[in-house]
Amino acid sequence: MSLITLTTDFGLKDHFVGAVKGAIYSELSDAVIVDITHHISPFNISETAYVLKNAYKSFPEGSIHIIGVDSELNEETNHIALKLDNHYFICPNNGVISMIASEIRPEKIVEINIHDRIESSFPVLDVFVKVACHLKRGGTLEVIGKEIFDYKIITDIQPIISNNNSKITGSVIYIDNYGNVITNISKKLFEKIGKGREFELLADRYPFKKIHSKYSDIVNFAIPKEDRHLDGARLAIFNSAGYVEIALYRSNLDTVGGASSLLGLRYRDQLTITFKDVDSNS
Amino acid sequence: MSLITLTTDFGLKDHFVGAVKGAIYSELSDAVIVDITHHISPFNISETAYVLKNAYKSFPEGSIHIIGVDSELNEETNHIALKLDNHYFICPNNGVISMIASEIRPEKIVEINIHDRIESSFPVLDVFVKVACHLKRGGTLEVIGKEIFDYKIITDIQPIISNNNSKITGSVIYIDNYGNVITNISKKLFEKIGKGREFELLADRYPFKKIHSKYSDIVNFAIPKEDRHLDGARLAIFNSAGYVEIALYRSNLDTVGGASSLLGLRYRDQLTITFKDVDSNS
Amino acid sequence: MSLITLTTDFGLKDHFVGAVKGAIYSELSDAVIVDITHHISPFNISETAYVLKNAYKSFPEGSIHIIGVDSELNEETNHIALKLDNHYFICPNNGVISMIASEIRPEKIVEINIHDRIESSFPVLDVFVKVACHLKRGGTLEVIGKEIFDYKIITDIQPIISNNNSKITGSVIYIDNYGNVITNISKKLFEKIGKGREFELLADRYPFKKIHSKYSDIVNFAIPKEDRHLDGARLAIFNSAGYVEIALYRSNLDTVGGASSLLGLRYRDQLTITFKDVDSNS
Repeated sequence: MSLITLTTDFGLKDHFVGAVKGAIYSELSDAVIVDITHHISPFNISETAYVLKNAYKSFPEGSIHIIGVDSELNEETNHIALKLDNHYFICPNNGVISMIASEIRPEKIVEINIHDRIESSFPVLDVFVKVACHLKRGGTLEVIGKEIFDYKIITDIQPIISNNNSKITGSVIYIDNYGNVITNISKKLFEKIGKGREFELLADRYPFKKIHSKYSDIVNFAIPKEDRHLDGARLAIFNSAGYVEIALYRSNLDTVGGASSLLGLRYRDQLTITFKDVDSNS
Repeated sequence: MSLITLTTDFGLKDHFVGAVKGAIYSELSDAVIVDITHHISPFNISETAYVLKNAYKSFPEGSIHIIGVDSELNEETNHIALKLDNHYFICPNNGVISMIASEIRPEKIVEINIHDRIESSFPVLDVFVKVACHLKRGGTLEVIGKEIFDYKIITDIQPIISNNNSKITGSVIYIDNYGNVITNISKKLFEKIGKGREFELLADRYPFKKIHSKYSDIVNFAIPKEDRHLDGARLAIFNSAGYVEIALYRSNLDTVGGASSLLGLRYRDQLTITFKDVDSNS
Repeated sequence: MSLITLTTDFGLKDHFVGAVKGAIYSELSDAVIVDITHHISPFNISETAYVLKNAYKSFPEGSIHIIGVDSELNEETNHIALKLDNHYFICPNNGVISMIASEIRPEKIVEINIHDRIESSFPVLDVFVKVACHLKRGGTLEVIGKEIFDYKIITDIQPIISNNNSKITGSVIYIDNYGNVITNISKKLFEKIGKGREFELLADRYPFKKIHSKYSDIVNFAIPKEDRHLDGARLAIFNSAGYVEIALYRSNLDTVGGASSLLGLRYRDQLTITFKDVDSNS
């Protein structure tokens, strides 16, 4: 059994998602199709990478991931299929793979060339589905394209480390369903650079001295529930995906707003973590 | 075959839902997973209970229902798994079960204790999925936790009956996709207290003398369609879940608005049904 | 294997979709259920027809399509099941079929009469599911209703051709996830009437001289990317469903807005294509 997942900016109202699933079932009646998301902001490659990077590892090895974001074929952007971390990806060659796999090299990449036989303005339906079904039936990458050894690289949203390792400058890469603000600073990077030193995280004008490991860390359970008044309190946390996140405790975007709207932190905004000099402490 | 359903406040944009499904398929390649909803308002237990209570009964007995709302493990809220009405539920012990099962006692409840082996800030993925797969493989509740005989009870949104049975005071527990306002007054309670007496339902300043059994009951089909002018007309109805609902005929939240916005009826607002004294009628 | 698809205006928050799926699995544990959409605007038959018409053909023949939009049974609207283009449809007799199948005659239509045995205010759950499962088990249409030879026809959103074939007046039938505006003018009609003549398409006050076949047709790849400034540029295109569409290049409804909001083109608005007289050219 292998799974086919879908990550797109199609939304769920139009016929696109239904048509793609129908086409898969028409080729493979026993397919298992899982929606990762269809709510990527239109054409947003960073969001696509953040979501898929944090979802694909939960799937069984051999799963096939179709990415339908910014996928129109043109003379600047071709279509690729690749094997990476024992998963298959079928996507436009627009840089998304470099953001998903910043630390892992794909094992094999092919430039899809079955287009010679297919004229399409809906390549996810007409091309990616065919490639996915081919792979699911056990077909090889070589049959659907020519092996290539490079793909488009996007690196502009990496965190910046100051020369003396005293500061990490990160940026907002994602706003989640709760309005929480996710940065590109991983726990791993934080620990590698920080080496246990004290620090101040500054997001807009809001300083944080601690990065928690779960939301309820800020709760003092000794105080009766009705006296705590914590809803909406600011905190920094390493989220379950392993990134620094600025959150409001129990925030609700629809009513009080989330960290993004209330703290004025938007996609691409910067924030800094400044570490204290160990010597000046001693 | 047993089904696993998901009811969460994760939304459909983030990686959470995809990751959870991937993890289930990684353990059980033939799982059947059904989304009940991922659009619960963040942390809203009443909504969770209303939606799941009205959905779970349609599923085959033996189905396993994962509830991912307000599920962080902390010293006040543990995780439980239980058998209720021949269905399994895996959820935080935050009162949601008492609202789903106000009239039914669970057969068996265990406090999940596989956490000793798992450190997690995403318990639905790391704990609930494991418990669900264990149950789906035919495992028993005892293996995943210690039997307990109590769970957290929330009762604050029950309707209030006046001493002389002349009045029911209910409250709004849910706003549906059409903007219709659903109350906690069931048809069963209405009939038990009302005993066929005349009544006035008062929602904000809007009175209703009748509670219909379908929306088109207010249509006079003898009048030509173009002369009816009913779109947006107010009505009270027993909805398909068996609760008193205040609706607008063919309302559309996106254009004209629904009952909630147009009549100013919001979550937790109160409304009353006052029954006429039978003696004063005679 | 046959598939059951769902096209409704239920939204994804309420219990309706979950309940319907649970009911299908209760009857048929090996069912394959695909959501086409649950985001039809409430009661909107044109949207329903546009989405389903463009999705159903991708599914295998024999698939069963449930339409849950405006489906309450009343003395004006009965329920029908039919075979059309080798697919089955179960729906209210409210005109939606005439808009899906404007050019194809159903092979067989029955008026569903299992209602005699079922009292319901949620007919998709209580009636349509039963009919779908009956058909999926290989049952015939005749068992669930009386054959009829007519169904409700809606024709008011067909494009109008001027007497001398010099002009097509179309209207907006759908706004998609990107805010793009889809008209009822098909490529086929455009070519049949236009016969290769020059034309001007006028949408509100915006004229278009060309209808492209893909979005990136308007890109001049000889110009460096950063100097193109094309995001948000207007274009007319034959979309992948084969209809004239007014789009903004890489528009994002959430940020800059889409063609619909920025050009002021809304559902039901008209637009014209005026063809040049061939003689006056010569």
